[in-house]
Amino acid sequence: LVSRMRAFGTTIFAEMSALAVQTGAINLGQGFPDTDGPAAMLDRAVQAITSGANQYPPGPGVLELRQAVSEHRMAQYRLDYDPAGEVLVTVGATEAIAASVLALCEPGDEVIAFEPYYDSYAASIALAQARLAAVTLRPVNGRFTFDPDELRAAVTPRTRAILVNSPHNPTGTVFTRDELTVIAELCQEHGLIAITDEVYEHLTFDGVEHVPLATLPGMRERTVMISSAGKTFSVTGWKTGWVCAPPELVRAVSTVKQFLTFTASAPWQLAVAYGLRTELEWVAALRAGLQDKRDRLMDGLAAAGFEVLRPSGTYFVQTDIRPLGFEDGLEFTRRLPELAGVVAIPTQVFYDHPERGSHFVRFAFCKKDEVIDEAVTRLKRLS
Amino acid sequence: LVSRMRAFGTTIFAEMSALAVQTGAINLGQGFPDTDGPAAMLDRAVQAITSGANQYPPGPGVLELRQAVSEHRMAQYRLDYDPAGEVLVTVGATEAIAASVLALCEPGDEVIAFEPYYDSYAASIALAQARLAAVTLRPVNGRFTFDPDELRAAVTPRTRAILVNSPHNPTGTVFTRDELTVIAELCQEHGLIAITDEVYEHLTFDGVEHVPLATLPGMRERTVMISSAGKTFSVTGWKTGWVCAPPELVRAVSTVKQFLTFTASAPWQLAVAYGLRTELEWVAALRAGLQDKRDRLMDGLAAAGFEVLRPSGTYFVQTDIRPLGFEDGLEFTRRLPELAGVVAIPTQVFYDHPERGSHFVRFAFCKKDEVIDEAVTRLKRLS
Ligand SMILES: CSCCC(=O)C(=O)O
Ligand SMILES: CSCCC(=O)C(=O)O
Repeated sequence: LVSRMRAFGTTIFAEMSALAVQTGAINLGQGFPDTDGPAAMLDRAVQAITSGANQYPPGPGVLELRQAVSEHRMAQYRLDYDPAGEVLVTVGATEAIAASVLALCEPGDEVIAFEPYYDSYAASIALAQARLAAVTLRPVNGRFTFDPDELRAAVTPRTRAILVNSPHNPTGTVFTRDELTVIAELCQEHGLIAITDEVYEHLTFDGVEHVPLATLPGMRERTVMISSAGKTFSVTGWKTGWVCAPPELVRAVSTVKQFLTFTASAPWQLAVAYGLRTELEWVAALRAGLQDKRDRLMDGLAAAGFEVLRPSGTYFVQTDIRPLGFEDGLEFTRRLPELAGVVAIPTQVFYDHPERGSHFVRFAFCKKDEVIDEAVTRLKRLS
Repeated sequence: LVSRMRAFGTTIFAEMSALAVQTGAINLGQGFPDTDGPAAMLDRAVQAITSGANQYPPGPGVLELRQAVSEHRMAQYRLDYDPAGEVLVTVGATEAIAASVLALCEPGDEVIAFEPYYDSYAASIALAQARLAAVTLRPVNGRFTFDPDELRAAVTPRTRAILVNSPHNPTGTVFTRDELTVIAELCQEHGLIAITDEVYEHLTFDGVEHVPLATLPGMRERTVMISSAGKTFSVTGWKTGWVCAPPELVRAVSTVKQFLTFTASAPWQLAVAYGLRTELEWVAALRAGLQDKRDRLMDGLAAAGFEVLRPSGTYFVQTDIRPLGFEDGLEFTRRLPELAGVVAIPTQVFYDHPERGSHFVRFAFCKKDEVIDEAVTRLKRLS
């Protein structure tokens, strides 16, 4: 393994999901739902397979999906992207992030990201031989946020881009317009590119609204806006994502993307185009259901003795394990299958400064009620 | 776009397929079949979708597919790979190649590849900031081969790996055991890793047999063996490939792969496992049919005035356009839709030394007989 990647092992998601399979524990680790996406959308995928859509789609993606993404961006956020040159289909958001970072960051460039961060960010930055500058999200009144001065101080002459993930995995924070304004001003002041990971855009709670950074003044032209179908439509295994950006940025990202995977699978693209056009009510119901599940899991975790931090979006809730008498989340989650028959994610692995998150543990609530209830019953054994 | 990628534009496949769509020309450019894979395998994919296999599969791939790949390697080549630690599922062979090169090559390392080469090789090497050393395949009695001395001379103290694509795209050469022995000896003498792209392994003609480099003495331990389902089962749009290699090499490739796309789509993996176990007779029929199509296209191209080089494998036939009074294949293929309503691929774009292939043009024969016949009728207008 090349030296720049030696700090990276198996992603924590693969490690913890394998542990769940091995031990038979309930998997509240990796974020994937245990129920299916909209039936008519699955039917559309079946139809694609049986009607001969099984060969290479066009490099930038099936036009129908690029059009649907474009319409969706307009309807949802009044953002206007040309399907012909401003939308690129990718193998999920992960490929979009890797391709964006590899396309835009020279060796030695710096990329700002908020820690804790989805682990592919650091890996993509390392692959590009760029440097990650981590700005820490800390709980303030139970909600993870950043200190604007700390963010400003992270910018150097070598800063090239900022990776903004909102709704934020793993903290569940949905950045406010004020927070985004701080980021937007910094981008414009220093000529930074924003790479936004918005895969949880539809999964927000308590009436909190997702605001894309690209909708802020001056930001559309410098933002690589990334989203995907996996979380929106409960088809995480379909690996279908997209990039929306001005032509020059899309061209750069495409140049790299085409050599990472050539194209994304064809049949999903037709099904997802259908989903974006037809299944937004289904998504609204998913969101409402997830809010109930969040509350269900939060209540259960609190009853089991965790300190619980309320997320405004995503599949995930953060807990502090210290009230249970534990200090180290990595040790805790490695023992949790044996202690309680549950798998969770140690948040500390998503930090450049692991000590800042050592006592946080992440639980996923994108699961059936009875699975959540059974997990809670088991976790109550801890105290 | 970062400087190391500026030499790369849109892949020629995307460019030429877009040109075909635009002009309505017959697309004998990009290699994808116009008929479907085995019906029972498509059914298996449908079944996966309707039975809830739509979420993230395990990071290394669905175990069933890893087992099927392992069994297939054993049955086909007597190669023994442990499904647990020596098989990794990827998003097609393209991702496997990118991840292998990015995982194994430090900046400044050299990678040998035979030109003309599939264009992602050069791009992956550039992404890794490694250097490509191209050894030229030249026609000898109508078959593209390399000069062993030229290959030996390409090795330097910085050489880290050799990329070996057999059956070879775009020339159609299937490397002989003698040719592979030269490569194997060199790898062992200089401690090189071999990365083999064997996606056309089942598509050989005239009784010519594909020999994996890993079957040669001393090579299994230093070979990253790559293949995929797209060409074997006529499902190029499914983007499902795999790596077989010793544990240490698989671990290195996985480390990068997981951050490029996280996982490959789940439903295809179940269907392809089924295909590898059940549909090899279908593949034998595909091969026989392709041999007839090759002959059909070769005869037609010869009748249209091309000089034709007979391939022993792949979907492709090389032609020399000089007998038709043309010199430059890039110019020729850009005009071909208008001249004759056909799209082909200029072979020169796959060379570090384009002048060595300027008069070669590649045509694909993985098409219905009537499509080949119509293309030939049109191409006869050229002379
Ligand atoms: C690789 S999993 C993608 C993100 C996610 O699902 C998680 O954070 O659990
Ligand atoms: C990107 S296409 C993969 C290879 C192929 O099909 C071709 O050479 O045409």
